[in-house]
Amino acid sequence: MTQSNWSVPETEVVQRIHERLDADGTDVLATIVDVEGNAYRRPGAKMLLDEAGDGVGSITAGCLEDELLAEAQSVRERGRPKLVTYDLMEDEDDVWGLGVGCNGVIDVLLEPLTDAYRPAVEAVVDGRDVAVLTVLEGDGDSFRRGDRVYYRPTAAALETPAGEPATDWPETLAEPAADLAERGRADVVEITHRGERLTVFIDGLAAPDELVVFGSGHDVGPVTELAAKNDFRVTVVGFRGSVDLADRFPDADATTTTAPAAVDEAIDLDDRTYAVVMTHNFIDDRLAVEQLLDSGVPYVGLMGPRERFEEMLEEFTEEGRSFDDETLSRLYTPIGLDLGGGSPYQIAHSIVAEVLAVANDRTPKHLTAREGHIHDRVSVDSEENIPST
Amino acid sequence: MTQSNWSVPETEVVQRIHERLDADGTDVLATIVDVEGNAYRRPGAKMLLDEAGDGVGSITAGCLEDELLAEAQSVRERGRPKLVTYDLMEDEDDVWGLGVGCNGVIDVLLEPLTDAYRPAVEAVVDGRDVAVLTVLEGDGDSFRRGDRVYYRPTAAALETPAGEPATDWPETLAEPAADLAERGRADVVEITHRGERLTVFIDGLAAPDELVVFGSGHDVGPVTELAAKNDFRVTVVGFRGSVDLADRFPDADATTTTAPAAVDEAIDLDDRTYAVVMTHNFIDDRLAVEQLLDSGVPYVGLMGPRERFEEMLEEFTEEGRSFDDETLSRLYTPIGLDLGGGSPYQIAHSIVAEVLAVANDRTPKHLTAREGHIHDRVSVDSEENIPST
Repeated sequence: MTQSNWSVPETEVVQRIHERLDADGTDVLATIVDVEGNAYRRPGAKMLLDEAGDGVGSITAGCLEDELLAEAQSVRERGRPKLVTYDLMEDEDDVWGLGVGCNGVIDVLLEPLTDAYRPAVEAVVDGRDVAVLTVLEGDGDSFRRGDRVYYRPTAAALETPAGEPATDWPETLAEPAADLAERGRADVVEITHRGERLTVFIDGLAAPDELVVFGSGHDVGPVTELAAKNDFRVTVVGFRGSVDLADRFPDADATTTTAPAAVDEAIDLDDRTYAVVMTHNFIDDRLAVEQLLDSGVPYVGLMGPRERFEEMLEEFTEEGRSFDDETLSRLYTPIGLDLGGGSPYQIAHSIVAEVLAVANDRTPKHLTAREGHIHDRVSVDSEENIPST
Repeated sequence: MTQSNWSVPETEVVQRIHERLDADGTDVLATIVDVEGNAYRRPGAKMLLDEAGDGVGSITAGCLEDELLAEAQSVRERGRPKLVTYDLMEDEDDVWGLGVGCNGVIDVLLEPLTDAYRPAVEAVVDGRDVAVLTVLEGDGDSFRRGDRVYYRPTAAALETPAGEPATDWPETLAEPAADLAERGRADVVEITHRGERLTVFIDGLAAPDELVVFGSGHDVGPVTELAAKNDFRVTVVGFRGSVDLADRFPDADATTTTAPAAVDEAIDLDDRTYAVVMTHNFIDDRLAVEQLLDSGVPYVGLMGPRERFEEMLEEFTEEGRSFDDETLSRLYTPIGLDLGGGSPYQIAHSIVAEVLAVANDRTPKHLTAREGHIHDRVSVDSEENIPST
């Protein structure tokens, strides 16, 4: 497997799955469903393995992927999903130790990629949240491994891949599915349903966060590139028609040119929109910042020294505009984390690091100084809390 | 100018200058020598402009570059250095406001690139610090704009481009030159020398910091890529010969395979070496960490949970090894800043952000929470403190 296929952003893995849906069963999708102990990736991490022995995405730091290719071949031949447990707790000097070595046990679901997975990737590609619910184990006759339904927030109920109500599924799963879909997290739930004991994997696929960059200078380029690699859907907004934005910023998912006073009409701004303002034009920046603060987006980063924004605030005051403290707390200027670099890439690195921290609700610090686990622990109702139905 | 040429790492700008030295005068080198107020780049930022109207590197966020191309043509025709001041304090809606808008005044030195610049780039390419001292103004007959000498720490004195002692230059400049060379910073110094008043630009070019990554898994790839973009010289060290490291990690400047117990013999480890340990093999990691801590390098980042390192510490103790608190304070595990991401690129982004923060002696936080100026202020002795000679 090539390096470039392994280290693709998550959004590209989904894109590739989307493209390969029509191959109908020759590709195998591997998804981490559970991790005990520590591992490089979290539940929900995906890898698509094709017939030629190539893979896109990553489950571990590299070694396990070769084993997965072999398992994928067996799944491809049998045409049925398979649950494989990799115990990486064994001696460190065995084959697993070389590739993973984080003292974890990883459960991986391997399944032929079929059209039944289409609702998942289409939701992500269209920018909608979705949860994929998949039976891992069942001790009765009604469910078998790989049986699948979806939860879409707009439907607010479990649905079959064809979009019909999933009437034979336990509807109490809708609540954890809604939560996981919104947060983009995954978890395994055990439930007793009509006397059958079921283990269900709920894979929440949240629509990618949006990064909107206002500006058309060359310094927008590294920000766009690094944000895209970090799984943001990136839109570049220009205020002058003189530059071909799509040509200048090939890493942007979208580009648009609008009038500085019409930002809130031209762009969807919601609670998953992160805005970086770097037009280097005081009036354009001010107009953008005003609309962004009014829109309630969780992050408005403004390039330039603090005094420049103070000048803006004075002009707002002169115009009778004011912003409360909560609103101003979403304004970050100077933009970026304090990493000390001064090159275009270093500046962009610090900007994208700041956006990541805000999007993930983290206070920037060394992980070594952080208490508890590195990864968020997902907690949803499990067997004990979900009533049997 | 293309986006990709603008947003290259600094090290690539120097590399390009090196390649173009033989063009002898047809390329023009632009260097920011002074900034008053605020600007996107710091003194020392460079851009190489060729005859075809293309440029590599960046002086501002994009707009000024077109003006520089025009100036470069005049410098090329006259064959003499030129000092240009761009006053960006003017109204924001003028042409400068569009491209910069940071209320600054920028002084830029433009000069035909000749072989006299070779000692500067060769030092950087070879990994040696150097300071380039260039006369900007002189009110007498002995010096003219563009006159140049070098300071190399090994020589500890000013030298001509040909390597001869620069006996007619004020030797008191050696001290600020030494300081700026080591820190990779630039400043303008005014001095009175033999009755002449001189303005000298001292451009400190520090050898790039080294990032040594221990590991050969695919997860090393994004770390290598992002570190190289942030101007680290990256070496990947593998402990097994089965992987073609240079092929797998094309962004690495060097790759080497060695025995885990022989790290300190195979690799130069000094106070500018930052080490990332991610072999995913407990024993290999432990051997590397032990030698790295002993070596005194300022940063040892270890992938994996904290408990894994505690297990290492127990084994060290059993073997009679111990490390004092100062030594352990250079060990960062879990590795990276707490940005909350879980994809390979997000993990790599947080690792490189941490290395940048440590290398620049910063405590990770939002810049908006930082007091004072974003950029470090360089302070060296100026006219008042340097005695006339």
